[in-house]
Amino acid sequence: MMDTLHATCEFGKAHPWGEHPTETGMARLSLDDNDKKVREWLIRETKALGCRVTVDQMGNIFAVRPPGGTHAAPTATAPPPVMMGSHLDTQPTGGRYDGILGVMAALEVLRTLNEHKVETRGPVGLVNWTNEEGARFPMITVASGVWAGTIPLETAWNLAEVTADSKASTTATKTTMKRELERIEFLGDTPASHTAQPMAAHFELHIEQGPVLEDTGRKVGVVTGAQAHSWFRVAVAGSDSHAGTTPLALRQDAMLAACKMVVAANAVAKKHGGLITTGILAGLPGSVNTIPHTVMFTLDVRHVRDQVAAEMVADCQRQFEEIAREDSERGVKVSWTTLTENAAVVFHPDCVRAVEEAVEEVCSALAAESGSVPDREDGRPWQHMTSGAGHDSCNTSKVCPTAMIFAPTRKGRSHTPDEYCPPEDCVTGAQVLLGAVLRYDASRKDVS
Amino acid sequence: MMDTLHATCEFGKAHPWGEHPTETGMARLSLDDNDKKVREWLIRETKALGCRVTVDQMGNIFAVRPPGGTHAAPTATAPPPVMMGSHLDTQPTGGRYDGILGVMAALEVLRTLNEHKVETRGPVGLVNWTNEEGARFPMITVASGVWAGTIPLETAWNLAEVTADSKASTTATKTTMKRELERIEFLGDTPASHTAQPMAAHFELHIEQGPVLEDTGRKVGVVTGAQAHSWFRVAVAGSDSHAGTTPLALRQDAMLAACKMVVAANAVAKKHGGLITTGILAGLPGSVNTIPHTVMFTLDVRHVRDQVAAEMVADCQRQFEEIAREDSERGVKVSWTTLTENAAVVFHPDCVRAVEEAVEEVCSALAAESGSVPDREDGRPWQHMTSGAGHDSCNTSKVCPTAMIFAPTRKGRSHTPDEYCPPEDCVTGAQVLLGAVLRYDASRKDVS
Repeated sequence: MMDTLHATCEFGKAHPWGEHPTETGMARLSLDDNDKKVREWLIRETKALGCRVTVDQMGNIFAVRPPGGTHAAPTATAPPPVMMGSHLDTQPTGGRYDGILGVMAALEVLRTLNEHKVETRGPVGLVNWTNEEGARFPMITVASGVWAGTIPLETAWNLAEVTADSKASTTATKTTMKRELERIEFLGDTPASHTAQPMAAHFELHIEQGPVLEDTGRKVGVVTGAQAHSWFRVAVAGSDSHAGTTPLALRQDAMLAACKMVVAANAVAKKHGGLITTGILAGLPGSVNTIPHTVMFTLDVRHVRDQVAAEMVADCQRQFEEIAREDSERGVKVSWTTLTENAAVVFHPDCVRAVEEAVEEVCSALAAESGSVPDREDGRPWQHMTSGAGHDSCNTSKVCPTAMIFAPTRKGRSHTPDEYCPPEDCVTGAQVLLGAVLRYDASRKDVS
Repeated sequence: MMDTLHATCEFGKAHPWGEHPTETGMARLSLDDNDKKVREWLIRETKALGCRVTVDQMGNIFAVRPPGGTHAAPTATAPPPVMMGSHLDTQPTGGRYDGILGVMAALEVLRTLNEHKVETRGPVGLVNWTNEEGARFPMITVASGVWAGTIPLETAWNLAEVTADSKASTTATKTTMKRELERIEFLGDTPASHTAQPMAAHFELHIEQGPVLEDTGRKVGVVTGAQAHSWFRVAVAGSDSHAGTTPLALRQDAMLAACKMVVAANAVAKKHGGLITTGILAGLPGSVNTIPHTVMFTLDVRHVRDQVAAEMVADCQRQFEEIAREDSERGVKVSWTTLTENAAVVFHPDCVRAVEEAVEEVCSALAAESGSVPDREDGRPWQHMTSGAGHDSCNTSKVCPTAMIFAPTRKGRSHTPDEYCPPEDCVTGAQVLLGAVLRYDASRKDVS
């Protein structure tokens, strides 16, 4: 599997960070020529395994292995497949594991089923979702979003590419998703819709993109859902005045108030067990000896539960109002703008249970092999987790049972060329994916 | 006096803000054609009063009235004069009072001395300091600085003008102070030095440019000195990571740390009775869902006493180091850069006393006139103050006894066209200036 991963990374490898030929990052932007090559490679590989391959109107590639494997012909009335999905497009300065690991692991699962001549109760397959990154065409997980019915097809088709020199380009010269799908000949006929291409379930192996698994020494994350996350812009309006001649008590200091608010928001996050981040803060007029009259800052608010995420926001609003009244009689004014709001995602318990059972078995086998006693508090080499980032699985979860499996990420670094997951952990994750898919298939109630 | 002030504001009036013809601001940049006109007007006026006028190499205009007034010829061995100074140049969007009030009041004092045929013990005069604003040629109070020996003449002469489209101009087309002095024919022969043009004392009437006098309802500020002020740039270095996938405890959040530092600095200022202001704060990479890895912010630190200003800085350094260690095991790193440091200025007690005695007499006279009982806590319509802004007097204070008199500023607004001091308060200030100069002259020990 790792050989295949690194071999196909030749299509779009970039930004070397180490000595070894595999120690590079990736620059395989959605629907570019390298993406075309890896897609064509994927189709050849899966067809050779006996899969039936479909490409939909968003370029999503579905490769479905019939229950009997290579020997049985696909039937027209086959039940919907249990799918393993992720993505092959990368960030401009991305790594070799984000998305790619999930697709390679899915392919390895299909190879393994064939090698062992496994007959599943229903079909099993893999899906490569187009433009998960939202780097070249600026909408994250857009193709799975169209498939799930949450993003209109035309909206996705009309996305204009964002280029490094996008300021210099005119709109007329920028291409769109639809034109690029046509150019690389991946504008399929099948409607990009869960109704046209249904799934029984969706399992996704993905690197954690965070530091938790590495920090706790665990090998697998059993992902139970994704956090609710919302973005806000907060504007604080005070009064500009001379830094030397205005006493503290007579100031309407927008910068001081904004800083107090950022600190308060962090305390709110701690109190509720969530995350709040200020990524941008800027003030006007921006002079060393002038008290800023206006300061804007952003809040990225996340929690596993919608209700608590809402409470965090309400808590911040209350505290910001109090802060706005401090410090001077006239105070400052604070106003909020909502940039985006995304509800929490809870993965289907049947899928999560399938992953849990698979990981227990895989980890027991690993411990037995190595003879080592895991030295963690609860002795368990895996843990439940919530995804902090968005994934295609967050979209599929809207219309079919879904779960994710996380693999450790070195230093939690992702969206960077030196993104890394040790090969043994990649393989463990793939093993868990295999186990989860087989368990789910075994327990399906909708097939005879 | 007010008629004269508004009449001469015709040279460079701009930015009307009200209905009345005098309700405009000013755009009389140092050494421009309007500045030339008002300078020539000043020389005509003071010569007509019998003053001996000298223009030095920085264009500073000294107009000295002999002790006997218009009747006595100036003597070669005259003792140094008691001078009243300020400036006639303005900000590009300045007002009618900043600097201008001080020069008009000085002229009115000279007129008054003549009208009443006053004989002083030593000479009395006025000085118009060139380029106090540092707007066109970017160095504040530069000409009094050269005169006081703290700024080299060549440095000042070589200052290139800053223009609104300075990015478009090439250096070759920008003019310098020296060339402009030559152009408007104000490059005098007299060396710009306190040794060539000594003063016995320097008194300056100036608007407060802050809100204190208006807020406390007082009419006059007896200025005892100017604050020490220093500017610093503080850089906080953390680690950029994903806002969704990085737990709070594993962050090295430069933005959070910087905000805590800004809040802590404000508390330090309150504790020590000084001022600390953050006018600029900016972070990288500047993405809503990325924890900033680097944040820079500025500190403007002021206190009336050098030692306390230094303690405030040391206090901030200690607290910033503590803050840098909070929140995560790895913490963040903080580093300081000093941008500028200016020692506190303490005005000469003899000059301050002269102002105090003058203001007591003027205010008693005012109260007697109006029959009103001042309804302030201590019943006094004046108070001691420290200047929060820099002035020519801060330079003269280095080489001769100096004091300042403040007049109220509406809403504390200055460097803006709607800068305003009520005419009665302008006049009160001029009356105090007259009294202070006469008292100082009367108490001089260096004349017979």
